[in-house]
Amino acid sequence: MIPATLHNIKIILVETTHPGNIGASARAMKTMGLESLRLVNPKLFPSADATVRAAGADDILSEAEIFDSLADAVGDCKYLYGTSTRKRSLQCEVLSPESATNEIINVMDNDINIGIVFGRERTGLTNSELDLCNKMVAIPANPGFSSLNIASAVQIICYEIIKRSLITGQDNVSAKYENTPVDSSELSRLYDHLEQCLIDIDFLDPLKPRRLMRRLKQLFNRTEMDQNEYNILRGILTAVQEKIKQK
Amino acid sequence: MIPATLHNIKIILVETTHPGNIGASARAMKTMGLESLRLVNPKLFPSADATVRAAGADDILSEAEIFDSLADAVGDCKYLYGTSTRKRSLQCEVLSPESATNEIINVMDNDINIGIVFGRERTGLTNSELDLCNKMVAIPANPGFSSLNIASAVQIICYEIIKRSLITGQDNVSAKYENTPVDSSELSRLYDHLEQCLIDIDFLDPLKPRRLMRRLKQLFNRTEMDQNEYNILRGILTAVQEKIKQK
Repeated sequence: MIPATLHNIKIILVETTHPGNIGASARAMKTMGLESLRLVNPKLFPSADATVRAAGADDILSEAEIFDSLADAVGDCKYLYGTSTRKRSLQCEVLSPESATNEIINVMDNDINIGIVFGRERTGLTNSELDLCNKMVAIPANPGFSSLNIASAVQIICYEIIKRSLITGQDNVSAKYENTPVDSSELSRLYDHLEQCLIDIDFLDPLKPRRLMRRLKQLFNRTEMDQNEYNILRGILTAVQEKIKQK
Repeated sequence: MIPATLHNIKIILVETTHPGNIGASARAMKTMGLESLRLVNPKLFPSADATVRAAGADDILSEAEIFDSLADAVGDCKYLYGTSTRKRSLQCEVLSPESATNEIINVMDNDINIGIVFGRERTGLTNSELDLCNKMVAIPANPGFSSLNIASAVQIICYEIIKRSLITGQDNVSAKYENTPVDSSELSRLYDHLEQCLIDIDFLDPLKPRRLMRRLKQLFNRTEMDQNEYNILRGILTAVQEKIKQK
């Protein structure tokens, strides 16, 4: 379901100040099927705050690798993407999360490590850290309030990765509701029954039918009703007719 | 840059337990240009935890509307999307975040409110809450660890919204709905009327209702009926009741 090669994608957090953000990032990664976390010089780690916010993604925290510098952390990565909400004037290509993850999924392979780098909470990445990155990923944000939480940024990127890796794998999440609609011939019987019932309750004048039945057919056609729902509706119509006869 | 009509998208959090998640959701919304937050029965709100986690999105918290029930919170919404990481077996359409936001951007208009509903941290949405929704949005997740934080779910959906509203010129998405659906509060009146009518014709035993009304609501929710169709159905129910009385 989730490709094993997602393990080769390294989520790298640089000098994270709040350990809670490290935990929340681990949780964000694990929900999206990623597992490999690298921390550059975290202010406080391990930490109870991180574990609480990981909410069960403890394995990612306990296996996280810790480095003294970004250069050390990315030594074995062939592709490096730096993330930002701002479009900085840079000498490198700036991609949308979508384009970046498309590239990542395309090059993903057992022998290639790919690093995605997330900067400090307040100040992001330094210029020399940015220079290590092949490309930048700009996460779209409100120009008036672009203060995206670091774990939220991780969540968005990892979401794009799982989305794309599932789509290229096989099935899209989108699904029509799963039941089989009844045949058109059955629907016709339902509509005949409905029409007779509307005449019986004096709602439809067979001499002046106007567009009533057409409208009702269009309404019910949109439901793509299944056999069970069909039976309920036929049952209701029969109950109306019997109730009228009884009295 | 960001369309003003994003204000018509209501992010609705149902019975959120941790106020920090409300704050983080407000921040997630604001970074993506959304601003209208509704809270159904929050366990603790306002709260210092919420304000801290909002990290500057205080205006969204102070303008958040609070309701006693989801039905009240969505009364003025014409389209309602419930969110989940699980594919539940439902009688309604299940969309990916991408498809759902495509639809939302497509119908977005100054006069139409659209609700996106996020359930409780542990237990999500109840069946009767789900029945209020026209469609479900399934956020792709790791089947082995699908415990997505609520603010992260808000972040992902709002990210898809800003992405799409910035990218699409609002006109290259295929138009699916021509009519404007009635409000959720009107639908609730129709369902109450239908229920009473089914009791009157002895089709529904109020002591043993079983799943009948749920099935019928799911069927009619799928129609996204407009005012005209709504009026016809209400008229039919009234005609049935009058016919029974007459005799």
